[in-house]
Formats: sequence, C-alpha cells, structure tokens
Amino acid sequence: MKKFQVVFQPSGRRGLIEAGKSILQAAQELGVGIEAACGGGMVCGKCKVVPEFGSFEKLALESSHDSLGPLTAVEKRILSDEEQARGFRLACCAPIQGDVVVSVPKASQSARQVVLEEGKGRSFEIKPAVKKLYVELSPATLSDARSDSARLLEAVEQQHGLKGLQLDYTALTVLPRVLRQNDWQVTVTVRPDKGEIISVQGGHRPESAGVAIDIGTTTLAAYLCDLRTGEVLQKASRMNSQIGYGEDVLSRISYAAGNQDGLEKLHGIIINDINELLAELAERQGIGVQEVDELVLVYNTAMHHLALKLYPGYVGRSPFAPAAADSLDIKARDLGIRMNPGGWVHSLPIEAGFVGADNVAVLLAEEPHKSDKIKLIIDIGTNGEIDLGNRDRLLCTSCATGPALEGAQIKFGMRAAPGAIEKVRIDPDTLEPRYKVIGSDVWYPDAEHTGAKGICGSGIIDVFAALFIAGIVGRTGRINGKLSSGRIRRDEKGKLEYVLAFAAETDIGKDIVITQADIRAIQLAKAALYVGAEYLMEKYGTDHVDEVILAGAFGSYIDKKSALAMGMFPDCDLEHVHAVGNAAGDGARIALLNIEKRAEAARLARQVEFVETAVEPDFQQRFMDAIALPHARHKFPHAGQRDSG
Amino acid sequence: MKKFQVVFQPSGRRGLIEAGKSILQAAQELGVGIEAACGGGMVCGKCKVVPEFGSFEKLALESSHDSLGPLTAVEKRILSDEEQARGFRLACCAPIQGDVVVSVPKASQSARQVVLEEGKGRSFEIKPAVKKLYVELSPATLSDARSDSARLLEAVEQQHGLKGLQLDYTALTVLPRVLRQNDWQVTVTVRPDKGEIISVQGGHRPESAGVAIDIGTTTLAAYLCDLRTGEVLQKASRMNSQIGYGEDVLSRISYAAGNQDGLEKLHGIIINDINELLAELAERQGIGVQEVDELVLVYNTAMHHLALKLYPGYVGRSPFAPAAADSLDIKARDLGIRMNPGGWVHSLPIEAGFVGADNVAVLLAEEPHKSDKIKLIIDIGTNGEIDLGNRDRLLCTSCATGPALEGAQIKFGMRAAPGAIEKVRIDPDTLEPRYKVIGSDVWYPDAEHTGAKGICGSGIIDVFAALFIAGIVGRTGRINGKLSSGRIRRDEKGKLEYVLAFAAETDIGKDIVITQADIRAIQLAKAALYVGAEYLMEKYGTDHVDEVILAGAFGSYIDKKSALAMGMFPDCDLEHVHAVGNAAGDGARIALLNIEKRAEAARLARQVEFVETAVEPDFQQRFMDAIALPHARHKFPHAGQRDSG
Repeated sequence: MKKFQVVFQPSGRRGLIEAGKSILQAAQELGVGIEAACGGGMVCGKCKVVPEFGSFEKLALESSHDSLGPLTAVEKRILSDEEQARGFRLACCAPIQGDVVVSVPKASQSARQVVLEEGKGRSFEIKPAVKKLYVELSPATLSDARSDSARLLEAVEQQHGLKGLQLDYTALTVLPRVLRQNDWQVTVTVRPDKGEIISVQGGHRPESAGVAIDIGTTTLAAYLCDLRTGEVLQKASRMNSQIGYGEDVLSRISYAAGNQDGLEKLHGIIINDINELLAELAERQGIGVQEVDELVLVYNTAMHHLALKLYPGYVGRSPFAPAAADSLDIKARDLGIRMNPGGWVHSLPIEAGFVGADNVAVLLAEEPHKSDKIKLIIDIGTNGEIDLGNRDRLLCTSCATGPALEGAQIKFGMRAAPGAIEKVRIDPDTLEPRYKVIGSDVWYPDAEHTGAKGICGSGIIDVFAALFIAGIVGRTGRINGKLSSGRIRRDEKGKLEYVLAFAAETDIGKDIVITQADIRAIQLAKAALYVGAEYLMEKYGTDHVDEVILAGAFGSYIDKKSALAMGMFPDCDLEHVHAVGNAAGDGARIALLNIEKRAEAARLARQVEFVETAVEPDFQQRFMDAIALPHARHKFPHAGQRDSG
Repeated sequence: MKKFQVVFQPSGRRGLIEAGKSILQAAQELGVGIEAACGGGMVCGKCKVVPEFGSFEKLALESSHDSLGPLTAVEKRILSDEEQARGFRLACCAPIQGDVVVSVPKASQSARQVVLEEGKGRSFEIKPAVKKLYVELSPATLSDARSDSARLLEAVEQQHGLKGLQLDYTALTVLPRVLRQNDWQVTVTVRPDKGEIISVQGGHRPESAGVAIDIGTTTLAAYLCDLRTGEVLQKASRMNSQIGYGEDVLSRISYAAGNQDGLEKLHGIIINDINELLAELAERQGIGVQEVDELVLVYNTAMHHLALKLYPGYVGRSPFAPAAADSLDIKARDLGIRMNPGGWVHSLPIEAGFVGADNVAVLLAEEPHKSDKIKLIIDIGTNGEIDLGNRDRLLCTSCATGPALEGAQIKFGMRAAPGAIEKVRIDPDTLEPRYKVIGSDVWYPDAEHTGAKGICGSGIIDVFAALFIAGIVGRTGRINGKLSSGRIRRDEKGKLEYVLAFAAETDIGKDIVITQADIRAIQLAKAALYVGAEYLMEKYGTDHVDEVILAGAFGSYIDKKSALAMGMFPDCDLEHVHAVGNAAGDGARIALLNIEKRAEAARLARQVEFVETAVEPDFQQRFMDAIALPHARHKFPHAGQRDSG
C-alpha cells in the first residue's frame, strides 16, 4: 500500500499515511485533534483545514496541489466561496494523494477529548501522563556517527518541540536495535512532567494503554483503559491472595510487622496478584503487558503500605503515622511489576491513618467538593468509608464493617464473577425467591438451572433486604422459623436458614442458603455504616443529606432500594439515592486518564477532615441501636409484617 | 557520656556532641568547614568563632555563657584584646559544656578541602555528588501524625535549607523503622543535583564512601575512597571474567551480538565482577557494601556497552555509532549492582567508536587541555589509547595493541598481584637477571626463593627492554641463540627462550621463561603505539613533544627507561617522560570526588578530535618499520651489541 508523508501544523505531528485516507483519518492516526462534530460524516463542516504547498526543506518534504486532489462535491457545497478561494478543505473529505503539509486553523482544532460517563454525571478531559510521539531519525553515517540516544533526543526536540528529555535506562538498552530494525522510524512514549522518554517502539504506534487497580483488602478490581479515548477496554477482578494471612487489615499488619520477612512475603503476594491481573487484561486485549504504559493504584492505608513494601507496623497503632501519605510515582520495575519496564506506577495519596487512597479516588469520582448539595457517599469494602459534605466542607470516617458485605464471612459469599447471584427478590406471599446470576439475563425461576455458585456483594444486600421486606427476617434480624415454607429450615445444628437456591439449580451441587450467622454479620456491617453517617451529619451540623451515593467494588451495582430498606444510611428520598458501582476504581481510572486530576487528589487528601467515631462516648449505644432493622413499613408495605422478633 | 546540642551558623548544621570536645572537633564531626591551618594545634589562631547566647526558639535551644567555659590561656594569648571583647573564641580550644550556637565568621570558614597528589602534580577540590546531613525530627504524636516522609523532608528543609527534595523509593521503604529505632535522629544521604535523598541511616553517620572502577578488557581496577577527604581507603583489582568469551573487544562484541542472551550473559559476568570487587573493598575496610554511596565507571566503548547492557553490535561496525555517548547516571539497582540501594552509578562519557570513557578519565587526570606544553599521553591497555595536544588542540587515537602488554597472551603473563615479577634488569656481561616481585622489596638474586608466579605488565616491558639492552634480543626481535648462557635455551619444539626465573625460585614449580612468541607479541604492541603517536604528531603539525606520559592499569608503574628503550614512543628526553600509573583509574576517582569534574569530562569528550590511523595509506609500511627495535646504542651502550639478526 502506497503511503505519503503528512505533517500537521502547528502541532508538527507527522507520519506516513496510506494513500486515499482522508486528512481527518490521518489526524486521528497521528493524534492531532481536529473538530468533527458529525464524527467525519461530511455534514458539520467544522473540520476546515488549509493545505500548504511548496518545498519545506526543514521537513524534507514537497507538498503540491496534487497532494489532495480537486475539491469534492461535499466541499463545494459546504465551503463558502471565500473559503474555497482561500484554499480551505474539509479534513473529512480531502483524500491524501501525495506528501502534504496541513495547517489546522485555531477554529478547527478540537478541544481535548472529554469522556462523559452516562448515568454517573462525570465528565473529564483526557490528559494522560504519557504521550506517544512518532519520530523519524536520519540514519547514522560515518560523517554523522552521533550516539543513538543523542540522535533520538534531537529528533524529538526538532519534531515535537520537547527539549531536555532524558531516556529511561531500560529504553536506552533496547534503542540500538529498535532504531535499526525499524528503518529509524520509532514511536517514543514520553512522560513530559518527568522529562523522560520511558520507552521506544518501532514504527508508528499511537496506541497507548494504562491500567487502574483498586486494591481492596478482599478484592482487586482492575481496568485496562485506552489512554487516547479513555475507553475501558477490559475489566478484571480477583480475590486478594493475602487473605490467607488474615481477613482484615489489622491481622495483615500484624503478620507483616511481626514476622521475619513478613512484609516481603505480603508485598510479594500482592505484586503477584497485580502481575496476574495485568497479564489477564493484556492477554484478553491481545497486547503484551509491556504495552501497559502506566499503572494507577488506589487502596486503603494498610494495602498501600503492603503493596509498596513500606513497613506497616506503625500505621496500625497510635499515633498512626503512615510512612508516606502524599502521592508517589515509583518505577514499575522497582516494585517488581511487569508492564512497560520504563513505566511508572502512580499511587494516589492517602488521607489519614485509616482513610486511604481509595477514598480519595471516590471523592475524585463523585466530586462532592464541587457540589452545593450535601452528599453522603458510602463506599462499601472490608472497611467502609463514608464521606459527607459539599464545596464548603468535607468530612470522612472509616467504619469497621468487616468483609461481610463483600461476600467474605458469608457462607456462600463469593466475588462478583460468573455464577454469582447478584440480584434477589422474594415474593412476600409465597416466600419464593427470584434471582439473577452474573453471566445470564434470565431470572430464576424462568430458568430452571441457573448455574449459581454463590452470592456476591450486591446479592447479599439484596437478599438481606428482600428477606426483611418479605417478613422472613424481623426487625431484630432473626429468621422467623414459624413461617411455613420449604425454603425456611434448620441446619444440622438446629440453626434457621433460608434456601435461596436448591442444589439442582446450581453449579456447585449444594443448596445455596442464607444462614442466621450471615444475617448477623450483615447487620453489624450496616450498623457500622449507619452510625458513621450519623456522626458525620452531626459534625457537619446537618439533619439531612441532599444526596446519597452508594459505592462499592462489587463488580455489580448495589440496589439502592435494598440498601435503603436494610437501613444502611439515614433516610433520604429514593430518587436522591444513586448507586455508582466501584467509585474508587472510577477515581483511579480518572487519575490514570488525566494527570491534572492527580493534583486535585492531592488537594482533596489535605482538605478532607477525618472524624474518629469509635472514640465517641455514645458509640456503643448507637451501634447497638442501629443493628435493628428500620421501621420501613410505609415504604415497603410487607416489610417486617411477619415479624416474630 | 553527656552530649550537648551544637548548632553552627550560617550553615545551620547541628548535632549532639560529647561534652568536653572542642568546637573544632564538633565542626569536623558535623562537616562544618573551619579554617585550622595548624590542624587544631592551638597555634595558628585561624579558627576564630563567635558563640551566640540567648534563647533560640526556632532551634529549640538555650545557649548560655557557661556553654563554653572561660577563655583558655591559649585564647588569651592568641586573641587580641578587641577580639576578646567582641566575644571571639578559638574553635580548637573552647570545650563544649552546654548547648551552644556557634557563628563561624567568613574569615574562619575553610575553603573546601583540596587533594594534592604528590608526584602527579594533580590538585582538585573535594566536592562529591552526595552529601551527608544529620537531622533530628520531632516524634509523631496524635496531634502531629504527619507521614514519616513529610516529617523528614520538612526537617531537612528547616535544618539544612534544602527544599523540594524527594525520597528515593528504597529509602522510603526503610524509613519508618530507621526513624523510630534511632530516636528520630538520622543521617540522610542526599544527591542535591538530583533533588533526591538516596538513603537514610540511623544516628549521626558523617562518613561517606564511594568507589571508582576502571573496567579494562583484561583487568578491573577499583578504588574505595573516603568522599569527605578524597583518601583512597582500599584498592583492589581482578581479571575481567569475560575473558573466557574472547580476549579482545571485537570477539566479545561478536559473542554478545551473535548469541541468544549473549549480551545478558556478558553483562551479568561484568556486573558480578563489579559486585565481587565492591564486596572485597568493603570487607577489607570493615563496612557494608550498602555504605558505598556512589560508583563511577570508566571503560572503553565495548566494555561500556557490555557493562550497561547496551546492545554493542553496532559499535563494532561502520559507522560505529554507540548507543549512548554522553555521561549517564543510572540507579545501581537497575544494573544489579549491590551497594547503597538508592545510590547512583555514574558512567563517564565516551568519545568515539573506539575511544572510551577510560580515555576521558585519563585526560581528566592529566589535563593536557590546561597545559601550554604539548603532551603525549600513552595509556596502555588491551587497546592502547594515545592523546596528543595542549590547551589549543587535543587529538586522540586508539591502537590495537592486543593484551600482551597487560600480560595476557604472554606465556607467564599475570596481573599485578603478589608474586608477579614487576621489575627486571639483565647484566649485559653475565646475562644474569635481577628481578623483583610484587609483595617483596628484595631483588633476586639477593633472595634465593622469590616466590615468583609470573610476570605482570610493567615487568613485561622491563624484561623486553632489558633483553634488548643486554643484547640478548636484536633489533629484529630475535633471541640470539649463539650466546652462551644457561638462561638461553630451546624449548621442546626448538624455539629459543630466556629463563627469567628457575623453578626453585618460584612458587609455581616451573621455570618462568620469555619465549620468542612473547617477544613478537610485545613488538607488535609497541609498534602500534609508536605509529599511533607518529600520526598524531603529524596531524597536530609538530615534530616533537614536550612531555610524554606513560599510563596503564598495571597496578605497578611502567619503567620509563624501559619504555623508551623498546621504542614505544618517539624520542623525548628521559627527564620529560613520566610514568603515572593508572591514569584512567585516577580520572575515575577524580570524577567520583568532584561532581564538577563530570561536566569537565563532558566538555573534554566533545573537544577531543578522534584520528583514525588504520585508514592511512602508509599505515602498514610504518607499522612494519616500527616493529624493529630502535637504534638506541647511544643511550644504552650495550643495546643490540650481540645482535645476530
């Protein structure tokens, strides 16, 4: 396929483009922003450009009137006579038929791409930390035998105006062969803020990928993103393999601090998890892990220390000073993370002893600091984090919910993966359930065999609320054993349980049940969240919140009705309750896609006030009060009506 | 032992000093430069300082008139009445008896220490790249639970005025424990030019060590230096273990470029050599390798590429463009070098395809660019490098000498180590040798058993010259078999050889002989050097040189008379010939001790003009002519008189 040189001004971006492609396609390939409201549909007329003709010695290029062929019919129709006389073309129409220099007038330069996320009301510019620049070098000759690195750096300066860059050591090691095996045409990946070229690839390689990972105590959620468009290309999640060293952060801290090589071991485990996630994401996308140019991590303070191999012994005890709180940029290779070997890992800042980077990420995603309304944000993980406030003031606290709401400590709990029951309804009359598993759109009993394997976080909240609304569980949380239903029975120890799925429906050959112990664990978790929110409202000085946002790294959205029904938070109109999924993961993704958001995260981490609730004198009493289920009959007419408690 | 806070102004350096020590001792411990021409002998009166009294809130310190006790008799004698009235004290006299703030007037501030090297005429300031700063932190409390890193960086800024530093990742990982296990008193090692704290140690640790290594094709020479004084604390050398992959650079390049993992293998071998040298130096000095804060490397271009794992395939063939030519700073851990894990390896710049950083180091040490006289510098290694010029113009070339002059390819050649014959004389009448081995001051035959094991580089040059002067070897290089001496004999193949040491004298149980093949190898080497020098003189346009400098990483100095006698360089009066030992190693050491010398090295690398001699049309003829030994009878009356050739 014949190719021609295309150079865009004023950006100076250049590259070889296949004959016949439009200028707009060339611009997209080379990462030049040209306004095209109609998406290249030859309708909007926004993509006006001016080809320049003549000999451009500096560019080693001749651009002639034949380079783009005559005006097309669309151009004759859309461009005014004056524009036609001034030589304007429409980038979407004009086909490349020769080497050409194209000037993009200010009016046609597109604003940076903005990602809008439907339903979450978020928008942010795409401004990743790394840039891909295509450069062409003059080959080494006996009369110009400069070093490869000097030659590359000069070409980058001349062709892209970036001065004083340095080559990362790992990029240098591959440079001689990459240059010569690719005819001296390469793409460099640059971290302009660090003045560094982090890698060099052969040929024209505009694509760029990054990964954001939310490292929870129980679950890791990872997102592979296209750093040019912001698109999430792949998602993956897995259990935190540290779980064998304790289910909660305190036992992991104890292990790391109290055992010879304990820190090294837990660090190695989490790095291995990260590497497996990266490998899985890359394989599914059909790229190599070394093409992951950046990684953003968010986590609670304990996971932060363990993932970065920072001694965590002192964050677990008074005065709870962390090793580092500010954001960190660490070379992936220093952490043993397998991705672009010159790439950086960005760790978002942590707030206080028990409020981590994951909560900063939640704030970044939900932006209460830009809101007039008072938002209550509940992020459910092994620790629950709650934020309350608006642009005037932001408070946060941490609640020891335990991992029940994530599925750990629940008899049939599992992470959000195919086979997990994620949505549950129970008919108040028949006490029969309807449920849906991840990976299928059919609800039981519409399908006889559902392939259920367990219950994930959102399913646990759903089934708990449904049991309550159907009257199977009373306000105290006890299962009503007097109800006559084949679903309600006693286990071998005489404890009541509710059968959500019978063995025949499942893929595990066992009945999936909700036990009385499960219900107790969920009650404790929801009580911790409720009390936390109450304290924050008091500290803020408000008796209401304007909006409630439910977040959690569930991999499946929380049902807001269920959350309200179970009394997870103070009363709020259902229309002002929003479930947003994994907001911490979203925030990590935002920080991955926009470097300026990292500065915003740093400001947020300093701005938010941490409230310690466990030291309040009436904490125990309030907690006990909140364990009971709410009086919610007016909203859910069946709720509690069969209450036996 | 009671200790008091001592703070020096204007430097702001502070620390706890044992009661009774003098202010001068305190200054030395804290790295504060106070002029003391008499070395603290209470004689010169240069070390005048002014104690300041009162309460210093910012320093959290009370300084009283009792802090230094009354004027001593020496002070009363040396200080003028006016000085006494103004409160002056002599730092060498005044004993510390309480917390005190000491102001050091401009006149008493010492210039930076200058190292003078006797016999080499070198002097340079000590200005290492790394600094040690002692800092005291306020412990973390519930009301001040800042992160450890923020606390440290703020203390460094307040106590030493260094702003905007960052902590190297490896320093951060150990920070929490180092702070708390040392009562929040630590010493940080700073690389100010990189804005980085590279390590944190507990307590007051002003000592600082660095290593310079000259990596030759055949031999590595390493120097452990005190970065405060410039003193060479330990020296060590070893063979380059890559030797099994080829004796010359071209065969190593072929191996690295032509074999799967060839580069990784040769890189790993040289890094292992470096690590073993570092371990040996550290062990002998009684420190840990992690206390080596910096490493400077010099090498030829091929060793540069192999040591840094840069693909060397293209430096070995036209147009000989290296991967990188400028100086490089690489984290030791990225190279797999075991020293301070946050420390940097500085690689001096290389000049041209075949002239490496070792030659830049030679120029740095010998400074022809600061000289009016024309200097000819001959650096003998597996490749010989020659520089010629002065402040007006500098030329260099590289000569393929082969490793003979370093002892490789010589039947009994060995590196300069105990047991190596380093000096040789031969009586022209008896043809009996006198020789001296490294590790003993006695010359054979004054000792019967000398423990000789082989011959090192300087011994090879010596024995070659001695054989010629004694007439055993003629101008053509042939051994005269007609001489009657038990030392001259034929081997089992009938080849003539000269017995330098009989088996009974040696530690190896074998006669140490010089073979005809040895002599041929030495002749080729010296011819290459001679012709190189001749060409440089022609290019420069001079028929004479003012000074000849003989350098080589021999570990033992070349005998300049021997070098002249064998015709290694054009004629020059013996008094203007100087043997300087390992100038490349000296230059590496200078770059280790003074960061400004690295900028000078960069300028030198650009300034020096490389001359390619092998392409000259009359090269072969000149080379053949130079193989013969010189007409030197006028200088050495016996030379060649028994010549049979």
